[in-house]
Amino acid sequence: MASSLAEFEELAASALPLGVRDFVAGGSGSETTLRQNRVALDAVTVCPRVLAGVSAPDPSTTLLGTPAAMPVAVAPMAYQQLVHPAGELALARAASMAGIPYIISTLSSQPLEKIAAEAATWFQLYWLRDRAMVESLIDRAAEAGCSALMVTVDVPVMGRRLRDVRNSFQLPSDVVAANLVGEQTEAHVGVAGASAVATHTAAAFEPSLSWRDLEWIRRRSDLPLVVKGILDPRDARRAVEVGAGGIVVSNHGGRQLDGAPASVDALEAIVDAVDCEVLLDSGIRSGIDVLRALALGASGVLIGRPLLWATAVDAAGEALELLRAELTQAMMLAGCATVAEVAELTTGRA
Amino acid sequence: MASSLAEFEELAASALPLGVRDFVAGGSGSETTLRQNRVALDAVTVCPRVLAGVSAPDPSTTLLGTPAAMPVAVAPMAYQQLVHPAGELALARAASMAGIPYIISTLSSQPLEKIAAEAATWFQLYWLRDRAMVESLIDRAAEAGCSALMVTVDVPVMGRRLRDVRNSFQLPSDVVAANLVGEQTEAHVGVAGASAVATHTAAAFEPSLSWRDLEWIRRRSDLPLVVKGILDPRDARRAVEVGAGGIVVSNHGGRQLDGAPASVDALEAIVDAVDCEVLLDSGIRSGIDVLRALALGASGVLIGRPLLWATAVDAAGEALELLRAELTQAMMLAGCATVAEVAELTTGRA
Amino acid sequence: MASSLAEFEELAASALPLGVRDFVAGGSGSETTLRQNRVALDAVTVCPRVLAGVSAPDPSTTLLGTPAAMPVAVAPMAYQQLVHPAGELALARAASMAGIPYIISTLSSQPLEKIAAEAATWFQLYWLRDRAMVESLIDRAAEAGCSALMVTVDVPVMGRRLRDVRNSFQLPSDVVAANLVGEQTEAHVGVAGASAVATHTAAAFEPSLSWRDLEWIRRRSDLPLVVKGILDPRDARRAVEVGAGGIVVSNHGGRQLDGAPASVDALEAIVDAVDCEVLLDSGIRSGIDVLRALALGASGVLIGRPLLWATAVDAAGEALELLRAELTQAMMLAGCATVAEVAELTTGRA
Amino acid sequence: MASSLAEFEELAASALPLGVRDFVAGGSGSETTLRQNRVALDAVTVCPRVLAGVSAPDPSTTLLGTPAAMPVAVAPMAYQQLVHPAGELALARAASMAGIPYIISTLSSQPLEKIAAEAATWFQLYWLRDRAMVESLIDRAAEAGCSALMVTVDVPVMGRRLRDVRNSFQLPSDVVAANLVGEQTEAHVGVAGASAVATHTAAAFEPSLSWRDLEWIRRRSDLPLVVKGILDPRDARRAVEVGAGGIVVSNHGGRQLDGAPASVDALEAIVDAVDCEVLLDSGIRSGIDVLRALALGASGVLIGRPLLWATAVDAAGEALELLRAELTQAMMLAGCATVAEVAELTTGRA
Repeated sequence: MASSLAEFEELAASALPLGVRDFVAGGSGSETTLRQNRVALDAVTVCPRVLAGVSAPDPSTTLLGTPAAMPVAVAPMAYQQLVHPAGELALARAASMAGIPYIISTLSSQPLEKIAAEAATWFQLYWLRDRAMVESLIDRAAEAGCSALMVTVDVPVMGRRLRDVRNSFQLPSDVVAANLVGEQTEAHVGVAGASAVATHTAAAFEPSLSWRDLEWIRRRSDLPLVVKGILDPRDARRAVEVGAGGIVVSNHGGRQLDGAPASVDALEAIVDAVDCEVLLDSGIRSGIDVLRALALGASGVLIGRPLLWATAVDAAGEALELLRAELTQAMMLAGCATVAEVAELTTGRA
Repeated sequence: MASSLAEFEELAASALPLGVRDFVAGGSGSETTLRQNRVALDAVTVCPRVLAGVSAPDPSTTLLGTPAAMPVAVAPMAYQQLVHPAGELALARAASMAGIPYIISTLSSQPLEKIAAEAATWFQLYWLRDRAMVESLIDRAAEAGCSALMVTVDVPVMGRRLRDVRNSFQLPSDVVAANLVGEQTEAHVGVAGASAVATHTAAAFEPSLSWRDLEWIRRRSDLPLVVKGILDPRDARRAVEVGAGGIVVSNHGGRQLDGAPASVDALEAIVDAVDCEVLLDSGIRSGIDVLRALALGASGVLIGRPLLWATAVDAAGEALELLRAELTQAMMLAGCATVAEVAELTTGRA
Repeated sequence: MASSLAEFEELAASALPLGVRDFVAGGSGSETTLRQNRVALDAVTVCPRVLAGVSAPDPSTTLLGTPAAMPVAVAPMAYQQLVHPAGELALARAASMAGIPYIISTLSSQPLEKIAAEAATWFQLYWLRDRAMVESLIDRAAEAGCSALMVTVDVPVMGRRLRDVRNSFQLPSDVVAANLVGEQTEAHVGVAGASAVATHTAAAFEPSLSWRDLEWIRRRSDLPLVVKGILDPRDARRAVEVGAGGIVVSNHGGRQLDGAPASVDALEAIVDAVDCEVLLDSGIRSGIDVLRALALGASGVLIGRPLLWATAVDAAGEALELLRAELTQAMMLAGCATVAEVAELTTGRA
Repeated sequence: MASSLAEFEELAASALPLGVRDFVAGGSGSETTLRQNRVALDAVTVCPRVLAGVSAPDPSTTLLGTPAAMPVAVAPMAYQQLVHPAGELALARAASMAGIPYIISTLSSQPLEKIAAEAATWFQLYWLRDRAMVESLIDRAAEAGCSALMVTVDVPVMGRRLRDVRNSFQLPSDVVAANLVGEQTEAHVGVAGASAVATHTAAAFEPSLSWRDLEWIRRRSDLPLVVKGILDPRDARRAVEVGAGGIVVSNHGGRQLDGAPASVDALEAIVDAVDCEVLLDSGIRSGIDVLRALALGASGVLIGRPLLWATAVDAAGEALELLRAELTQAMMLAGCATVAEVAELTTGRA
């Protein structure tokens, strides 16, 4: 039994090759933003309330209309079979057991339909150069029962992830982009001194995504629309004008623009700017972090890397149980019976 | 002779098993708040005054009506026999010799009556599920001569102290909760990967304590009421409305909500919010720290861990002498003849 | 292939003697300002925009009327043959290939005319005691086709660079100040416990340069005038009054007044104070840093040391390609199609 | 030849026993204030001016009417024979050669008359329990030609310097308080776990010095009066009301109240509060530090420890030459012809 989510990374270290560990753990550039995500979260203080008469806090909520046993969704992450043969299915089942939404990545290594059969899911959309494929993905997601569409807007190209470059990282031959078709499925062509994943992304993704495209999606799909990867309040407002029901404040886990602010530092201005659900992503590592995000005004969080490490050691369910236990206890210690009460706590910076 | 309180921890290290050392030293979660308690205290600067004509500063005061030779009380700490067979009696005698109040923990490993016979005492109350036992404890404390009742409000459940979890920490069989009766006395059932103390606490404590319960205590007891574990000024004001004569600003030594602010960072807002005695707890390690707390508006402080380390090496009296010497000298160097004058010093943050 | 500019310093380490490495890398005094240049740049956050419909960002601009493929010029640096026999010619050719201005140092180790034949160049002027030589340099620069005149104003004397002092650093006999004549060309007289370069500078440079002298230059030359080495907005305003078309905010890479502010910390006040091109120098190490400078209002940057390290390993061209790739990608990730759009991004401090 | 004052401490390390090194280097308590003195000075930035037409800066000034070749005086330091048999005489001669005032400590290990014969001196007065001896010292200082009287007000008792306590530090038998008579001369009685110097100080010094006493001195002596050891602007104002012509902002090198602010952090408020000379003491280690102090409004600085380290290795003169060279160069690089111009520079915090 792990006593903190950090332990899963240690456990996974011996189970995974260096290239995969670096692909999961790394950030872009000099990893300034990657580090700052944690520095900034650790500095957030939450002032507990006492004598609130809370006997059993209820961390349940709804996220974009999806009931969630806690204000957490599994972040969309590519190629989960990199860490375990059961990959997305294992993590989706764990999410289902934990009662939280699982977000299927466009770049999942198993077909979205198989994953959607395992859990309450949302579908994360990368904008591909092939618009017919985009349409197909949107339709397939809806048919498979995904209950929200999350459009990632911070990857016009992949960030310069130097670990992958130095490792000349490429996917093993049995890990593919299972939702795509033809050549788009493969990120295996090894090039010395380059990331095959970045090369594949550059070939497959449409870099010039614009607000007009988001409007097109809004019209094309009836699913609740979430825009992931916003840090500037001006963009958050515009996303809501276009029809987004949710914003994910994220710097892509420090993997895109190095030098971008810590996502938690960008959160409050966006919460103030818009009247929709705001989720925080990038750096969440404990139930305390969830409490921090909620106290700063988030509706919930996405959590990624710790769940991959846990999946690698067959412990995704245990990780989510632990996260729920941490959050529930943090709510108890903060005197909050419900998620809504957490937003009334006073925050500070250490 | 130790030259600083820090030395007692070093001395005790060889006298105590790892599990006990970790139980005393540890904090909850990633110990962010534990560390921040010291970082924040170290950053407090106090600007001395000169030529004040002080020849012999007088650090004496009263705390909640109890005369105190210095503005310090021994913090309530559970199971003091963990560190020494003489446990609470040894530390209470040292407090008595030093002329300061000793606060008896609900979870003392020796009966409160025996401890109260040794010193000027207050009684610290944890709210137990068994209300008859709570009533009995309040009555016993009054009868034993305790002169104040300190209700701890920040332990609806015990914080996740990972050191104890990793050590599967349990009490040795001869250390019991001597004030409780029946099964409530024991925290010995070892469970791999869990803290037996946390398990016992969860079984014995009433988690849903509310303001109504505090009112009930207020009516039930004539003793001055102190509420321990407040960080939010809104709670401090309400405690005073309910009838508290004192507030202990405390994050339980970083052992409850990890991510809570350093108690010293919460102090000033509470001093400003209420018109009653405000004590600071969590992180006090020297006479300079006492000066800092007083200069920030505290009436006094509680000090815990350093006294346990000193007790472990039969030096509780020496530790309190040293603390008094440090404080007296700090007052001298700051040009303050009395505790009241310390509050006139200017503070800053380095 | 290097994946970051930092790697060139590592590569060059084995190619260069310690004295040269220290001469290039070192700062003055206790190197507080040298370090702070990086600390301050790393703390600048830039908030990206999304869905801007950018498919291929264009980093081109003009700097002082010179077209530049990116908002970067090669900083003027003395004695480039210290790192490679091809010295200035190699780096100028790389600048030319990269489409950016190369700034010829008064203390170049190859004649300015030979360098100016290789690239679009500006000429950097140190004020020599021999005014006839100053006049001659100004004339030669114009005749050679340099398109701007950059007067360095922060070296009345050379800063105390303790690494050079400790190394008793002197130039090898085949490296000379090729633009000067007679005794002025040599910085080879070794003196134990002193920097021969500093001694030479003290002999050759006129320390008492004043605003009147700058006016004299303004009248003497028709080239656009840039003043390099300004940190105080009052000086920036005066430089513009005297006729400067550009300001370089610089602390000379931490090599002059130790204790001076990080140049990036001085940037915004100068951008606000003047209505001319403002370039940032000192500490730029990546395309992200260029983005930071532009977002803070700079028109462009000078970059120095990383290009010397790259030149030492025959990789100046590669370094500039990498810098351009980093900047272009950073613009892409920040949603900026043009250099002008970068100035609209929101900056912060981590 | 040392290239920075820091080197003298390294050089002295092998020349001095540990007890002496610790006595000189140490601070009080946990040495928080000792460290903060440097942290705060390093954080002060000074923005240089350019094109000021300065050819040879003149660092000369007057300090309390005494001409000084630079705005620096040798801080009063006890028992200088601890580091060298020539002790005070060596350092006074070096001060004389450097053209700056030497401040004779009450606790000098050579008679004040012998020291005053070597240099322009001020006399530093500790307030002794024996008022006749105080009168005698004041008279002797005036007769010996000391041109100012500096009353130290921050040592009612000596700070708890734990290094001395742990070393059971006592003076060697041939080092005495040469200005005192009878038993007062000796700090040699070794007590295990105590500082003999502290014991001696406690016996000899009058702890209850007050403003009335300062008034008495003011009437008793015609010499300009400087009050050393002030951090609170209220005390600075009162000192001036009593007739002080100068204030030394000092925390006694971090040796008295641990937790006091860095002296440089206390400087500006005092400069703003009073209209007299304000000197900065505590932490000065370079000419850059002198520039920082002047730019923040100080009239000059005292420098202590680096000169003791230098004296230990027969290099006090060299150290003062180096300091002057550093300051002159810093003024040159900052564009300041005179000490007065330094005060016009803009300061900041890194």
